[in-house]
Amino acid sequence: MDNQTLTLNVHRLISGLVAQGVRYFVVSPGSRSTPIALILAERVKKSPTLQLYVDVDERSAAFFALGIAKTQQVPVVLLCTSGTAAAEYLPAIAEANLSHVPLVLLTTDRPLELTDIGAPQAIEQTDLYGKQVKKAWRLALQTPGSTNAAFVSFQSQRSVVVALTTPQGPVHLNLPLRKPLLPDLNVAPPQLKSLRVAPAKKELTTAELSRLKQELSGKRVLIIAGPEETQTYRTVLLTLSQQCHWPILADNLANLRGTNTVIAHYDLLLRLFPNLPTTLQPDVILRVGGTPVSARLVQWLAKQTLPVYLIGAQRQLADYSYATTEVVAADEATVLTQLTANLPQQASDYLVRWQQYERRLVASLPPVVELNEMTLIQQLDRSLPANSHLFISNSMPIRDVDDFYSGRQMRELVCNRGANGIDGVVSTAAGMATSPGQHYLLIGDLALFHDMNGLMMVRRYQLPLKIIVINNNGGGIFSFLPQAQAKAHFELLFGTPQNLDLKQVATLYQLSYQRVKTLAELRQALANQVQFIEVLSNRRTNVEQHQALLRRLRSALQDD
Amino acid sequence: MDNQTLTLNVHRLISGLVAQGVRYFVVSPGSRSTPIALILAERVKKSPTLQLYVDVDERSAAFFALGIAKTQQVPVVLLCTSGTAAAEYLPAIAEANLSHVPLVLLTTDRPLELTDIGAPQAIEQTDLYGKQVKKAWRLALQTPGSTNAAFVSFQSQRSVVVALTTPQGPVHLNLPLRKPLLPDLNVAPPQLKSLRVAPAKKELTTAELSRLKQELSGKRVLIIAGPEETQTYRTVLLTLSQQCHWPILADNLANLRGTNTVIAHYDLLLRLFPNLPTTLQPDVILRVGGTPVSARLVQWLAKQTLPVYLIGAQRQLADYSYATTEVVAADEATVLTQLTANLPQQASDYLVRWQQYERRLVASLPPVVELNEMTLIQQLDRSLPANSHLFISNSMPIRDVDDFYSGRQMRELVCNRGANGIDGVVSTAAGMATSPGQHYLLIGDLALFHDMNGLMMVRRYQLPLKIIVINNNGGGIFSFLPQAQAKAHFELLFGTPQNLDLKQVATLYQLSYQRVKTLAELRQALANQVQFIEVLSNRRTNVEQHQALLRRLRSALQDD
Repeated sequence: MDNQTLTLNVHRLISGLVAQGVRYFVVSPGSRSTPIALILAERVKKSPTLQLYVDVDERSAAFFALGIAKTQQVPVVLLCTSGTAAAEYLPAIAEANLSHVPLVLLTTDRPLELTDIGAPQAIEQTDLYGKQVKKAWRLALQTPGSTNAAFVSFQSQRSVVVALTTPQGPVHLNLPLRKPLLPDLNVAPPQLKSLRVAPAKKELTTAELSRLKQELSGKRVLIIAGPEETQTYRTVLLTLSQQCHWPILADNLANLRGTNTVIAHYDLLLRLFPNLPTTLQPDVILRVGGTPVSARLVQWLAKQTLPVYLIGAQRQLADYSYATTEVVAADEATVLTQLTANLPQQASDYLVRWQQYERRLVASLPPVVELNEMTLIQQLDRSLPANSHLFISNSMPIRDVDDFYSGRQMRELVCNRGANGIDGVVSTAAGMATSPGQHYLLIGDLALFHDMNGLMMVRRYQLPLKIIVINNNGGGIFSFLPQAQAKAHFELLFGTPQNLDLKQVATLYQLSYQRVKTLAELRQALANQVQFIEVLSNRRTNVEQHQALLRRLRSALQDD
Repeated sequence: MDNQTLTLNVHRLISGLVAQGVRYFVVSPGSRSTPIALILAERVKKSPTLQLYVDVDERSAAFFALGIAKTQQVPVVLLCTSGTAAAEYLPAIAEANLSHVPLVLLTTDRPLELTDIGAPQAIEQTDLYGKQVKKAWRLALQTPGSTNAAFVSFQSQRSVVVALTTPQGPVHLNLPLRKPLLPDLNVAPPQLKSLRVAPAKKELTTAELSRLKQELSGKRVLIIAGPEETQTYRTVLLTLSQQCHWPILADNLANLRGTNTVIAHYDLLLRLFPNLPTTLQPDVILRVGGTPVSARLVQWLAKQTLPVYLIGAQRQLADYSYATTEVVAADEATVLTQLTANLPQQASDYLVRWQQYERRLVASLPPVVELNEMTLIQQLDRSLPANSHLFISNSMPIRDVDDFYSGRQMRELVCNRGANGIDGVVSTAAGMATSPGQHYLLIGDLALFHDMNGLMMVRRYQLPLKIIVINNNGGGIFSFLPQAQAKAHFELLFGTPQNLDLKQVATLYQLSYQRVKTLAELRQALANQVQFIEVLSNRRTNVEQHQALLRRLRSALQDD
């Protein structure tokens, strides 16, 4: 076997990825992937802009890559050996596909003559990820000739381009390789014929803009801002909202809360007024971002017959309220900038009324005195540093943060809201923590257990991630659901206590640990160098506390 | 929503599975799966023959189910909620597909109107597992009417029948469900119209048998017995071998070693004599079972031009030596019984010569004095109780066991040799340990780390699994491969030391722990109630020890 061809083509593959902006590579050890891993390591050693992470557990590796990609808004490349290793990527790929995160998956494979013929570590890897990837291609890195060389150079660049094209998502390159697998590390990378991409940013035409302007002018416009990780349109959305006095119902993951036109507590308000108070009802709804965490908001939206504008091309009309009546399938920042430039400054009672409700609701919240799953969020809101990053686990944490986080400081809130799994949360947060700044993870004990392997990356790379674990010994969310009525089987099937000793977990991964029982202790632990903070909770008490809070809000707001 | 229809159909689904022989269910907690989980729990409570396990980590759950199914030779049903939970099953499914283990995967899903429309926890689950399953179907459990009821009853039975039909493998039932999800636990299961299956066991015709007999009579027949978990043909194969004096090269996973016509050390022999000594060369080869662990044996086979008979229908000619010249695609036990009844008792020098080589090789092995990765296997061979079960991890352990395990006592050796992954090993072994008897797991530190979550099942269900961990702090196999030459990047990419404190791991999962440094300590730990035994090793020393042993064998056997 000609290892010059292999070596040169692997260089082309990597050059192609790098040419299209890849800086991060997450590799899992294996034999079949040897030529790519070795040349990659060699190039990373020589290039200060490239970064290589090694993660033994491929499931964790894929979520780690997802964490880097979604928080830094960059394409990330994964590399693994053949067989079940490649299958381990699927959960993170499904998440990336739905949350539109650009990943490029390099799975090395046995060659054709060793596929489905009893050879070891050979599963069918062609189309392994089915509909969970945008595209799946194969590259033959050992085929000689200039045509194949050009194909490898082109296709590797194309894989990144497609991953980055709206809607962004994962792309799979399957790479069959024959032995011998050792490349020649003395061969220099060949020149790459690079591919330049000028992304189209559709602007509204004057006619389109004029129509939109007319339809929004003088209306009570309510903006609903769903989860959105890119920072492309946040500023202009706030400007538009302030200029036109249009209130924004901002999901916690929209990362807009804490500014004056933003309403944070709409989910609590909708529990008291499922149809909204009359004075808060809009004429027109303008949506940006993904599916809101608040199911109540979506249910409310589903009942509306008024015009609903959906701005943005990333999410392809994924609107399970089915309420959208008009799509503006263009880049959000561009459209919102055009609107801002064309709509007049205007005052409106409508914003004021929302602000009044919000203020009364916040004033009616119980004082933050005892530490529980709700006040924990409020305390984090007060204590976490400005500009820090908070990764939030699915299930209860994201719901509580959505309800109780006001956004006192500008922070980045992040969560896996494509498929909403509780798997891979620690690893994704670890991936987030590779970027500069201060990083926090809020997670329950079950999700922590599910992805405990992710802690290895935190330890190994000394990632500055502070982990706050709400330990209610099981699945807290089920106590809020109808399942709680099925008492005979509840703990077995839904509560599922794991009796995990979190102090031991922290010891195993060499993380400094503290259990906090009060808000003061929590504040102190957050201020100190503690990396792993345990907050004990009780699932039943937690439900009662949530119910008591709702009763309190009801009597304060509904009875007047 | 009519919960009577749902309840009755869920009963039909479960009755169908049970009617076709399902006794084990492995459930992961979730909301969408509620109606099935609840009715299942209710029925398990009332039926002493059904068994329900709950595993929070779906990846681990699927391997756990695989472990039950492959060691007990029974179909096992998995149940999970929608989204990435279902994606987590893929690695174990890929393994089950290649190792022909009957699993039925029940994934609950969002209904059509919540699919790919931005609704939470909804990924595309139709054909999620692609080519890794034998069949994938959908059932609508909430559709009323007698036709659908009959369909559910039939299809649930069919899923097990297909999973059990040769070649066995995984079958996927995707189950979309609408809220409300609570079934009525007071409704009794409806009558099931059951499906009886009479499996065809093809016998050879008199003509076929007569031809085969003629072709084998008086020949030097060498039997190669690959991995095989079913016990259907072991006895008759040994009888045939003894009657005709045909030697059996038996893979450690063929579970035949320790009887007089079986040769265990052929892999070592092939290292000394890659073409075999002339006196050992056969006229005809007769193969049963899967792909042997020994790549050297397959390479030797690939070079042969003599007739190679492959008996068995399970593996569909998956023979990466491409040496097979004749397939007897029928049930092994049947064919072997027919052969035994029709071939005469005969003595042969051929067997004796193999036995002589085997004896000389064993006599030339170094004395078992110091504990290392090789003598560990020999000591287990001596110490583990008769009839116990030993699960072996992939990578180095399975290779060393194949080389150094003589099979002094009848034991069941088990390994995931479909896709040969190092993932899911602990969970699969835990699944094995649900059956009666004594159970052991031999595993390296990397594979242990990869599936540490599997230890939760060991702890939670108090499974009698003794775990022996070879801790050489990383991936030992790479030190034997050409990759070892790539010194600059070796530890980063291949060695990958995790510095895992195994004592802490044992503490976390409340397993009694002992580190053993000598063979005497190992014997003692095996005899005592220690559940987690750590054997320290060094990757470099290990290679040197293997090389020294080969030099020793060479000078003892080649020079005469």
